[in-house]
Amino acid sequence: MSLSFTKMQGLGNDFVVLDGVNASIHLTPEQIRTIADRRLGVGCDQLLLVEPATHADADFRYRIWNADGGEVEHCGNGVRCVARFIVERGLSDATQLTFQTQRGLTRTERLADGLVRVDMGAPVLKPADIPFLADAQANQYPLTVDNTTWQIAAVSMGNPHAVLRVDNVDQAPVSTLGPLIEHHPCFPERVNVGFMQIIDPKRIRLRVFERAVGETPACGTGACAAVVASILNGWTEAQVEVSVPGGQLMIDWQGLNTPVWMTGPAVSVFEGRLAAGMA
Amino acid sequence: MSLSFTKMQGLGNDFVVLDGVNASIHLTPEQIRTIADRRLGVGCDQLLLVEPATHADADFRYRIWNADGGEVEHCGNGVRCVARFIVERGLSDATQLTFQTQRGLTRTERLADGLVRVDMGAPVLKPADIPFLADAQANQYPLTVDNTTWQIAAVSMGNPHAVLRVDNVDQAPVSTLGPLIEHHPCFPERVNVGFMQIIDPKRIRLRVFERAVGETPACGTGACAAVVASILNGWTEAQVEVSVPGGQLMIDWQGLNTPVWMTGPAVSVFEGRLAAGMA
Repeated sequence: MSLSFTKMQGLGNDFVVLDGVNASIHLTPEQIRTIADRRLGVGCDQLLLVEPATHADADFRYRIWNADGGEVEHCGNGVRCVARFIVERGLSDATQLTFQTQRGLTRTERLADGLVRVDMGAPVLKPADIPFLADAQANQYPLTVDNTTWQIAAVSMGNPHAVLRVDNVDQAPVSTLGPLIEHHPCFPERVNVGFMQIIDPKRIRLRVFERAVGETPACGTGACAAVVASILNGWTEAQVEVSVPGGQLMIDWQGLNTPVWMTGPAVSVFEGRLAAGMA
Repeated sequence: MSLSFTKMQGLGNDFVVLDGVNASIHLTPEQIRTIADRRLGVGCDQLLLVEPATHADADFRYRIWNADGGEVEHCGNGVRCVARFIVERGLSDATQLTFQTQRGLTRTERLADGLVRVDMGAPVLKPADIPFLADAQANQYPLTVDNTTWQIAAVSMGNPHAVLRVDNVDQAPVSTLGPLIEHHPCFPERVNVGFMQIIDPKRIRLRVFERAVGETPACGTGACAAVVASILNGWTEAQVEVSVPGGQLMIDWQGLNTPVWMTGPAVSVFEGRLAAGMA
């Protein structure tokens, strides 16, 4: 089998994207691990497969595998790349697309300059659904770690996030405090930890310690959670530019029970064809 | 510019290989760094460019750039991949090829099963030419590091190598003793350090601490230097299988003033075409 693919990236989060519309593609976890290997294969954080939708309201189905071969539910940087892949491969010329993912439908909208806007879903704020152990819902909660009490916001964007406001993200204790909050007993499924600096009502800076991973250059759900927290606390307006180490995202949210929209870049790096025997 | 390339690897040492025979290719150091970037580009240890020879005795010229954009002289794993690239791209169907490199001519021979045999040049044993500070040439030298004296062989394969025989490479102090020998004052240009275990007269195991890099999975010149040292000391025969962490190499050497030949794999992983604007 000689497999055609496109290598893409969004804010340095990189993907091998495959067209499963024009040909049925079935890869084993071992084949996915080989493709994702940065020396013996193509190299990527995740492999993305576009397939025909089986849901009546979706234009395409989109599946995601991590480099270890395990399938995952959703990736904000990935869906932007898939939206652009579909146009570049001529699978659709629609500006707005609806994707079927393992956790439901996701809408995307292509903008100018290679930017794509993605519906990241409505934030979940009810503590039990995050999950976060708290007596009542609040915009900030005190959280005590090693005898120091921090004020955090708690938001789920499909995955749980704790957000701390700091004066300067460059000096934030991401690598030391991040893992302590990640494993805090108030987060029974552990938590991603965002350190947010408010620059002005339209701009924030953010670093995210991802659950089970460590600090990453561009956590899309982390950017959404931080902006939800900053809007709820009155620190920013409804549309916010988020600077993360990997680049810039624009997040907009119109308030409770409405989806968070994330706008960011999607870049095609190269097109390739795997040598026979590779997959 | 839309640049066609082949991604190849030999023992996990990976390359982007370009055909500069059918089209003239000029890349800036910045373009090379972008192509070599594992997230924003294709990703590789080195970029290899095949060009028409300017030397009458050579079939092709071959140039090498590291991922930082700097040009280097020679790479044993790279030249195997180039030899295979030339056949796969239809640039030549000759079994034996002579390449012009920055440090002279290099011969290659294609064998079955994707293996390529490479003339790595004759070893340099004269201490002043390695360079190594010693009163007289010997097969082994005492070298004192932190009050412990080790027996080492000193061999240059175009770059300097110190080789230590150990009972078990798995337990060898590669990361601790390696840098101490690398910076030992008897090696004025520093040195690569090989830790070699003799299994039997036809087989050794080897781990190499590369100068300015650290331990690497498959140092070709290190394998040559280790086998030269083991033959000179009477520990192995003239043809030796070398197991390195990245796989197997076969080294053969007929003695003083003859070249060391290295046989190893060269694998095409995928063919690609960079998106417009990437290079």
